[in-house]
Amino acid sequence: MTIVFYDLKGRDGLRFSPYGWRIRYALAHKGLKHEDIGVGFIEKDRVAFSGQQLVPVIVDKNKGDKVVSDSWQIANYLEDTYPDKPMFGSPQARGAARFINNWVGTTMFPGVIGLIMADLYKRVRNEDQPYFRESREKRFGKTLEALQEGRESRLPAFRASLDPLRILLKQQAYVCGDAPGYADYILYGSFQWPGIGSDFELLAEDDPIQTWRNRVADLYNGLGRRAIRGPQD
Amino acid sequence: MTIVFYDLKGRDGLRFSPYGWRIRYALAHKGLKHEDIGVGFIEKDRVAFSGQQLVPVIVDKNKGDKVVSDSWQIANYLEDTYPDKPMFGSPQARGAARFINNWVGTTMFPGVIGLIMADLYKRVRNEDQPYFRESREKRFGKTLEALQEGRESRLPAFRASLDPLRILLKQQAYVCGDAPGYADYILYGSFQWPGIGSDFELLAEDDPIQTWRNRVADLYNGLGRRAIRGPQD
Repeated sequence: MTIVFYDLKGRDGLRFSPYGWRIRYALAHKGLKHEDIGVGFIEKDRVAFSGQQLVPVIVDKNKGDKVVSDSWQIANYLEDTYPDKPMFGSPQARGAARFINNWVGTTMFPGVIGLIMADLYKRVRNEDQPYFRESREKRFGKTLEALQEGRESRLPAFRASLDPLRILLKQQAYVCGDAPGYADYILYGSFQWPGIGSDFELLAEDDPIQTWRNRVADLYNGLGRRAIRGPQD
Repeated sequence: MTIVFYDLKGRDGLRFSPYGWRIRYALAHKGLKHEDIGVGFIEKDRVAFSGQQLVPVIVDKNKGDKVVSDSWQIANYLEDTYPDKPMFGSPQARGAARFINNWVGTTMFPGVIGLIMADLYKRVRNEDQPYFRESREKRFGKTLEALQEGRESRLPAFRASLDPLRILLKQQAYVCGDAPGYADYILYGSFQWPGIGSDFELLAEDDPIQTWRNRVADLYNGLGRRAIRGPQD
């Protein structure tokens, strides 16, 4: 028995969804067997059975085909259903990790968007590109190219916005302390988005955040460095 | 036996140190008896026995007069030494709470400084005012009055910077979930600084952060609303 994991896919089956990476790491952390199915931007009806259109979605075949969507809900489901090898370990950790989830959405992602959107477009499948361009340009009120233009000038402010994380990673090896937990996967997954969606270097080589990214990439047999593709891709 | 808790004091014994409030709440959370001793800005040699000059400092008379300084270290000491009624509950929670600690220092406090420094000066004891003015003006490169001038224009950006917390408090009652933990005290203490140091309203009345502040203020017999003074003040 296994867990079926539906994740966004780009060109050549590339996995760059920050939400998908959170769940890929969560499944690896728990040591849960899973089948990874890529879903293109215009194939969202493949997860319509979940009652909504967004990936990631999991179907837990160990538990009567239980369906869960939304990365935060999936992480909590996995923690509650498979309590061994905790990713949170306490209610207080869930609360604080959710703060980090929100910080990524309100602080880090708006910065990333101005650095990589035109690059990311090139890593989207041909058949998804019109949807990707139209939906993003409508959302941000600019062309993808205009969003990214002059990005070098915005890089210092972006890097400075990461100070709460940078200071933490001078203090300890992982966001969660001596060992990784779900807050690490939230943040690492968020860096996989620009990391796999673009060649633009977001961080200086000697940034403690970069050192931690390498450390997390090495986990679970170098999970973060593998271009994940399912047989369906 | 008790714990002696040295905290910064202002005019009339006012307690407005964000770091002190974190520890006051931590001690209340653990249900630990303590004696609260106020220390003025120019009286720092009263804690010289701790090997440094900053408050808060605790002396744990239950444990052979163990001395601990630095709010983060004190919180961890209390959690490890008095594990009942956990404030973290897991290593992962400590890690994520430390991220929040850093976020306050790098994101929230720089905003607060531009809103209240001249007000705060008036709530510092006469004998501490020259030190307070000189040290802060040197640190920030501006007079206290210049720091605060035009604050209304900065208020919208300050409020927006609190979005990760605001969203969280729409999702759940406390930062730590259904019940308060140390991450709540970090953030609540950080609001006590402008809240007690100034009459300037940082938040709109209907802000979910304001609702949560009132909720945390009510804890432990309305601890956050009490002007705490020790017999030594």
